[in-house]
Amino acid sequence: MTESETRALLQAVAEGSSSVEDAVMKLKMAPYDDIDIARLDTHRGLRQGIGEVIYGAGKTPEQIDRIAHALWKDGQRTILITRMTQEAADALTKDIPFTYYSDAHAGVVGSMIEPDCEGTVLVITGGTSDIPVAEEAAITAETLGNKVERVFDVGVAGIHRLLSNTDSIMAANVIIAIAGMEGALASVVGGLADCPVIAVPTSVGYGTAFGGVTALLSMLNSCASGVSVVNIDNGFGAGYLASMINHKGVAV
Amino acid sequence: MTESETRALLQAVAEGSSSVEDAVMKLKMAPYDDIDIARLDTHRGLRQGIGEVIYGAGKTPEQIDRIAHALWKDGQRTILITRMTQEAADALTKDIPFTYYSDAHAGVVGSMIEPDCEGTVLVITGGTSDIPVAEEAAITAETLGNKVERVFDVGVAGIHRLLSNTDSIMAANVIIAIAGMEGALASVVGGLADCPVIAVPTSVGYGTAFGGVTALLSMLNSCASGVSVVNIDNGFGAGYLASMINHKGVAV
Amino acid sequence: MTESETRALLQAVAEGSSSVEDAVMKLKMAPYDDIDIARLDTHRGLRQGIGEVIYGAGKTPEQIDRIAHALWKDGQRTILITRMTQEAADALTKDIPFTYYSDAHAGVVGSMIEPDCEGTVLVITGGTSDIPVAEEAAITAETLGNKVERVFDVGVAGIHRLLSNTDSIMAANVIIAIAGMEGALASVVGGLADCPVIAVPTSVGYGTAFGGVTALLSMLNSCASGVSVVNIDNGFGAGYLASMINHKGVAV
Amino acid sequence: MTESETRALLQAVAEGSSSVEDAVMKLKMAPYDDIDIARLDTHRGLRQGIGEVIYGAGKTPEQIDRIAHALWKDGQRTILITRMTQEAADALTKDIPFTYYSDAHAGVVGSMIEPDCEGTVLVITGGTSDIPVAEEAAITAETLGNKVERVFDVGVAGIHRLLSNTDSIMAANVIIAIAGMEGALASVVGGLADCPVIAVPTSVGYGTAFGGVTALLSMLNSCASGVSVVNIDNGFGAGYLASMINHKGVAV
Amino acid sequence: MTESETRALLQAVAEGSSSVEDAVMKLKMAPYDDIDIARLDTHRGLRQGIGEVIYGAGKTPEQIDRIAHALWKDGQRTILITRMTQEAADALTKDIPFTYYSDAHAGVVGSMIEPDCEGTVLVITGGTSDIPVAEEAAITAETLGNKVERVFDVGVAGIHRLLSNTDSIMAANVIIAIAGMEGALASVVGGLADCPVIAVPTSVGYGTAFGGVTALLSMLNSCASGVSVVNIDNGFGAGYLASMINHKGVAV
Amino acid sequence: MTESETRALLQAVAEGSSSVEDAVMKLKMAPYDDIDIARLDTHRGLRQGIGEVIYGAGKTPEQIDRIAHALWKDGQRTILITRMTQEAADALTKDIPFTYYSDAHAGVVGSMIEPDCEGTVLVITGGTSDIPVAEEAAITAETLGNKVERVFDVGVAGIHRLLSNTDSIMAANVIIAIAGMEGALASVVGGLADCPVIAVPTSVGYGTAFGGVTALLSMLNSCASGVSVVNIDNGFGAGYLASMINHKGVAV
Amino acid sequence: MTESETRALLQAVAEGSSSVEDAVMKLKMAPYDDIDIARLDTHRGLRQGIGEVIYGAGKTPEQIDRIAHALWKDGQRTILITRMTQEAADALTKDIPFTYYSDAHAGVVGSMIEPDCEGTVLVITGGTSDIPVAEEAAITAETLGNKVERVFDVGVAGIHRLLSNTDSIMAANVIIAIAGMEGALASVVGGLADCPVIAVPTSVGYGTAFGGVTALLSMLNSCASGVSVVNIDNGFGAGYLASMINHKGVAV
Amino acid sequence: MTESETRALLQAVAEGSSSVEDAVMKLKMAPYDDIDIARLDTHRGLRQGIGEVIYGAGKTPEQIDRIAHALWKDGQRTILITRMTQEAADALTKDIPFTYYSDAHAGVVGSMIEPDCEGTVLVITGGTSDIPVAEEAAITAETLGNKVERVFDVGVAGIHRLLSNTDSIMAANVIIAIAGMEGALASVVGGLADCPVIAVPTSVGYGTAFGGVTALLSMLNSCASGVSVVNIDNGFGAGYLASMINHKGVAV
Repeated sequence: MTESETRALLQAVAEGSSSVEDAVMKLKMAPYDDIDIARLDTHRGLRQGIGEVIYGAGKTPEQIDRIAHALWKDGQRTILITRMTQEAADALTKDIPFTYYSDAHAGVVGSMIEPDCEGTVLVITGGTSDIPVAEEAAITAETLGNKVERVFDVGVAGIHRLLSNTDSIMAANVIIAIAGMEGALASVVGGLADCPVIAVPTSVGYGTAFGGVTALLSMLNSCASGVSVVNIDNGFGAGYLASMINHKGVAV
Repeated sequence: MTESETRALLQAVAEGSSSVEDAVMKLKMAPYDDIDIARLDTHRGLRQGIGEVIYGAGKTPEQIDRIAHALWKDGQRTILITRMTQEAADALTKDIPFTYYSDAHAGVVGSMIEPDCEGTVLVITGGTSDIPVAEEAAITAETLGNKVERVFDVGVAGIHRLLSNTDSIMAANVIIAIAGMEGALASVVGGLADCPVIAVPTSVGYGTAFGGVTALLSMLNSCASGVSVVNIDNGFGAGYLASMINHKGVAV
Repeated sequence: MTESETRALLQAVAEGSSSVEDAVMKLKMAPYDDIDIARLDTHRGLRQGIGEVIYGAGKTPEQIDRIAHALWKDGQRTILITRMTQEAADALTKDIPFTYYSDAHAGVVGSMIEPDCEGTVLVITGGTSDIPVAEEAAITAETLGNKVERVFDVGVAGIHRLLSNTDSIMAANVIIAIAGMEGALASVVGGLADCPVIAVPTSVGYGTAFGGVTALLSMLNSCASGVSVVNIDNGFGAGYLASMINHKGVAV
Repeated sequence: MTESETRALLQAVAEGSSSVEDAVMKLKMAPYDDIDIARLDTHRGLRQGIGEVIYGAGKTPEQIDRIAHALWKDGQRTILITRMTQEAADALTKDIPFTYYSDAHAGVVGSMIEPDCEGTVLVITGGTSDIPVAEEAAITAETLGNKVERVFDVGVAGIHRLLSNTDSIMAANVIIAIAGMEGALASVVGGLADCPVIAVPTSVGYGTAFGGVTALLSMLNSCASGVSVVNIDNGFGAGYLASMINHKGVAV
Repeated sequence: MTESETRALLQAVAEGSSSVEDAVMKLKMAPYDDIDIARLDTHRGLRQGIGEVIYGAGKTPEQIDRIAHALWKDGQRTILITRMTQEAADALTKDIPFTYYSDAHAGVVGSMIEPDCEGTVLVITGGTSDIPVAEEAAITAETLGNKVERVFDVGVAGIHRLLSNTDSIMAANVIIAIAGMEGALASVVGGLADCPVIAVPTSVGYGTAFGGVTALLSMLNSCASGVSVVNIDNGFGAGYLASMINHKGVAV
Repeated sequence: MTESETRALLQAVAEGSSSVEDAVMKLKMAPYDDIDIARLDTHRGLRQGIGEVIYGAGKTPEQIDRIAHALWKDGQRTILITRMTQEAADALTKDIPFTYYSDAHAGVVGSMIEPDCEGTVLVITGGTSDIPVAEEAAITAETLGNKVERVFDVGVAGIHRLLSNTDSIMAANVIIAIAGMEGALASVVGGLADCPVIAVPTSVGYGTAFGGVTALLSMLNSCASGVSVVNIDNGFGAGYLASMINHKGVAV
Repeated sequence: MTESETRALLQAVAEGSSSVEDAVMKLKMAPYDDIDIARLDTHRGLRQGIGEVIYGAGKTPEQIDRIAHALWKDGQRTILITRMTQEAADALTKDIPFTYYSDAHAGVVGSMIEPDCEGTVLVITGGTSDIPVAEEAAITAETLGNKVERVFDVGVAGIHRLLSNTDSIMAANVIIAIAGMEGALASVVGGLADCPVIAVPTSVGYGTAFGGVTALLSMLNSCASGVSVVNIDNGFGAGYLASMINHKGVAV
Repeated sequence: MTESETRALLQAVAEGSSSVEDAVMKLKMAPYDDIDIARLDTHRGLRQGIGEVIYGAGKTPEQIDRIAHALWKDGQRTILITRMTQEAADALTKDIPFTYYSDAHAGVVGSMIEPDCEGTVLVITGGTSDIPVAEEAAITAETLGNKVERVFDVGVAGIHRLLSNTDSIMAANVIIAIAGMEGALASVVGGLADCPVIAVPTSVGYGTAFGGVTALLSMLNSCASGVSVVNIDNGFGAGYLASMINHKGVAV
């Protein structure tokens, strides 16, 4: 509640056009508005109209089913469920439209929305083992209204594979670069691109790959500018952030 | 060299309007154009008209002086010098306009350019010790044509200090959240903001702060979405990326 | 054995009212009394009247059953069993009163005692995945005679959720702040509270959460004063220490 | 501002006994009161009447001098300055009463206040090298109004030295156990005491002492209950928390 | 495409013996030829005539079967499959010649080729538990046309076992030294040999062996010159590199 | 082969009492004798008459059975098998005398030999969970001819339990101190004892116990002199070394 | 005070041959005797007649001078001062006999005592940079009455250098193996020796030597039995423990 | 001493053409020959005719001067001195020919020898800060008789710079790839080259570069085959190994 809104409300009370009780109720909610609860909620629940996201890890199929139906009942028409097992997907009561993306270990209740901004989010991976993380990122970005291009298995050890996609890299509005092992993809892509690159280390590799730590460190030390990093295997986080950046062009 | 340019050149050869030797020379340079060298160069040297950046660490005052003058002679009118010591600043031959920002350990040869896009980059820190990194980020963003707002010393231990800046957080187009110690600032800001948050861990702290590693890990595990991370104390990287995101609104 | 007690004993020997052998036996035990063996025992077994605690991890259902019955036979009327599996709970011979708290993975033989001190122990968590650790802390504090208030899932990414519980935070006599991932809850709560905050990092998270190490480091570097830390997932230790602090008000 | 206070204010507006402008101003401040800004401030600045604490590390002698005088002018009569060098102490303008505690690397402007609660804070160390951290803890607790007992150099390698202080351990209301190297002191003291033990790892040691990390890990894994840990070398934090716990007995 | 080839092509266009469209197509592919795509491919796929390598880890028996048959159909006559389970070996459709090397967890489709260079690759291990990694290295080198000598279980704790193989060490053209635990084998062999030593740390050991990290660090710090290191358990990489070095003698 | 033995052999050749071929064969073996192969073998296989040790981990029951019978056939009458599962023990063909020590996860083929030296090896643990490692150490020492005293579950958190065993600590010739968690036992025992203390960290604990690393670091930094450390959970190594030290008194 | 001594004292009181007051005084000291204070003191101060050890690190030359003179006045005739700088050595008031061993960074006040046991302590190093640690170990062992043999710079990279000292290794009663970098010396020596080997990692090396951590880990994982480890650069601890083991032969 | 040599010697003894004493002396030296001492020496001292290498770190200018002159007097005509400071270079008595390579921190006494094998060693770096390590590698390879090509500052962030050197990469016989920060150079070069790549991580970078650890881990996890790694900043080791591989072509 802004200062002028507060003043208007008080004026209404002073003038008798608002009862004290009504004003109490409105002001009682104000602290939350002041720290922008509604906005926060829509923020946390992603942009209004796109719907809540259900983090499936650690939830039973029953819990996921219950939450999904509750959101559906509330009017959400695109509900993303991440880290969802095939078992949970099978267990979902099918009285609501549902698609399971097994590569992404993700499900979408309702229909995938149309892209609502112009830029493309390029999701690019070093290897085929990085694809589950890449698909999580891609599906996330798509459910948030982004056009997504996928370029997989173009690791730097065969640099020509990567270079043959230079056009896609140049054309992207934001890039999600996903790699395990030594994570060098982020640096090379970062050097080729002139848009923000979100680097996602994956737990692909063995021995001193240390479950993604090596790729993470490599990406944090990228000699290319414009690269930032999210947690290991965090495809959702990258897709979410990419959508945020991609929608900047629309809002400003 | 694009496909159509190549076709035009060959047509000229076929028609005799270009000699074979001239065409050989043009095509010989093409591979670099094909992988877009010019663009890469302008990319690496930041956007044309903004100028090259000189990374001052490990360079002698003489080297910095020489490079700065060379760039100036080449026509660059805004040259950012990061990690520049007071000593190097004093040693710079003053036949070119120069301003030293001691808090940022940065210098700018020429004049700071006017903001060329509408959004604001909010630079926010947890403590006063984080200010050098924050100023490096801010000066970088400013030399790249961004409007920058600074909110310093609003660490989460006194949450009201942070909350009293909710308006700035809400209004920002991209936020750079800078903190050492436990780095919780990124999570709280990430929860309040609806724009991308670039988290910069700093080496502020002692003992188990481990020179910024604790803040880094904390930021990578932020429970808020929309947060990505750069290397410890990497104010320049954050400012550069923020500018990239902030300019998205203009180009699209 | 104090100096005067020793003198009295020797006097008795000198006077013949104590035999040498009796005095030998008494003096033989003295060193232990000097370091207060009895008191130590009651210390280790928690306050008299509250009973022993059985650490269930690594014990077979049979072993737990045997120890529980032995303690019950010894007269203990509130016996806490931590890290107890559902299987062990099912296997407990039910000739003694028993309640299993599945969320806490804990069981209590006998009846939960009434709070015997005035202050409230607030158990607060960042997420729902932290609840098992939180319940272990809460049940521990309750079996030790504390009033416990639970506030769960108020992580800092949605700061308004936490702030709407400011009253509880302000009213608590001691707070147990439990969080995984980046563990920022401890810092924010520590900044709001004016009572001791015991931070418990949990192994919730993935990738660079490193099984709770990130939350631990974050909590150790809290920029708020009055925060101390226990081992990862150590709900029992936090509940025990909270009870110790909470009972200070009674004894002094 | 409670609901009833809000109602009363609105009633006054409705009745004309409060102008709209006055009500706006009062409500404008409410959000902060709601999160209890005043209390927060006194919290952060420690208990009223005891005064602000100045963290001396990273501040120039001039800055310390200026802040100390400002606080003195504001009426603070006990101002603790931690991590203060001898040089900074010498540089302090001596128109205000000042004592420098060189062992603690701390200074106190004004007079040390009398203990205002009954319990004793026992500060105990494993070796003589731990004394600077111990003195920081002790001086902090004393400036916060606690009776402090010091027992230094009673490491567990000569367990009789420690045991000969069993009485002090038993009598304490809260104990600060400070040790470097293997940090075993916390476990042994924790086993002997029946009050909260705040363990402070120190950076004393070499090789695999890893600057205090070994002591820290050791203390976090203490087999004794009632032990919690603060950051390496954090004497101030321990003294502050000890005072918080020690004053519990007074308030309840 | 070399300069003379380009000149020839342009001459053909100028002379009309090549259409513009054909030349466009050829030039479009040129950049890749310039960075030697064909060579890269044969490089990545190992030397022509030896065939592709299938990394079996993370592939289903069906996927392995399908790829192996595709390569066979393409004319590859020696196809190495690494990290192949017994299950995958059993599942391979046996209409193509196939041998499974269970110690190496590797299979070879087609026939093992004859050594095509003179030097010997010595594969030497510290213990018997290192044999699976050693066999992966040996089989890899053999499928790449190398003579391989195996000397297993000659760890440094019984130095005479190692010394009795001094002749083999002296005669080798390149040595692969494989060890877990403290990895000292690499240093001792490195001191005895006058040829390159490729050290492979293995995950053999327990406790502070840290899954091969200790052996890795030990090998990186070898006091002997001529020793380099590959990733933990990376028998394939060592065998591949050994073959590369061993074939140097042929090509130069 | 000593110099005098060599001289004698050559004299025999010179005198014709040894053929050249016989001398060649004898000298051929000499290098190994020179580095004392026989002794090495008996060393590695432990003292003659005590027999070989079979490291059971990673061996199938069949392999263990086969090796045990081979050694028995070779005349070994006390064969220690460490890290032996109950399953392997059950599978051992019982045509040879065999005892399985389930606590130690160890088996002994043949009969336990009588102590052949006077000193006592004291095996002492912090908790009951350390017993498997302790029993491995104890059984190892016993099969090597040592008198062993066991004192278990005397962790430092209840220091009186440990002190009540001061006599045993004082009387021991060598002590094996075994503990997990914070490993403080080694320091306290090291301070009480005047004989060598072999510290064995165990993987007992959770969270920051880091699988025994914390106990290891703690023990390496023991403030008591006379303490050395072996690998985590290495009961066998400690028992073996203790026997070596304990037998010093006999041999000198 | 043993049970029989206590009985005798009481008997004397009963018989009047001891006054009650005298007995009180004697018993008052008993708790310390019971936990063996005298013995502990002589233990901590090393064997009676050999004298106290002064740890010079962190002590001013004046403090060292004062303590050394105090001990000398108390009758100690061999006083070891470890980690003593040349500066401190120069500053020592020379009214007492004193020798400074610059290689060992150690000084000895009084005269070095004669070996009082038969066995030899072999101090062996991998390189010349390990000599300071080796000399600290050697001087320590010598001041404690041991015969010491030094064999330096026989690292495993030139195994023949080590093997040419096989006789010394075989003849030693206890070996101190000192090495930095990869620390393989301990394993090779451990395999050759049939006596206890105390391994001392040193901070010699660079990069991944990690200040001695690599050598430490390597030594803890030695594939040879009979090897135990002390802290990085802890020459004193190794010399002290070696003396303890070496003197076993005398006492039993 | 080979078997046939031994037989010949014994025959001589049998025939009286060698005295027993002479044979004793010859056989006494044999064990060393058997383990090939001479060869080892030439190995350790590098190939005969090339000369000894002096590791200058930790040696005083006087020590370096003395050793260099001793080697020169012994007839060595190319003496490499690594990690040599300018000060040590200046202090070298100039009665022998000497060149100081300041970039490499290396000096060469005598004359640089001509390449004695055909292949080229390519030394390639990611940045300019890596040049000191690169020059150490290059000078080492040159003093060992190799043709060296230098390509510096072609980091992957500007991939075209690297690709424009594809010819050099393709033409090399062995490549030394040197990089700090994220170390991605090794992977990209490894993917382009068909010869062995020795990767050298450097300590260039800040924050999470961790003094070269990140580059090291990245290189160990290179997705390209044919890449092995040496210690951080170990230019000498890389140059030495490169020479070993490069000379393979000559010897076979």
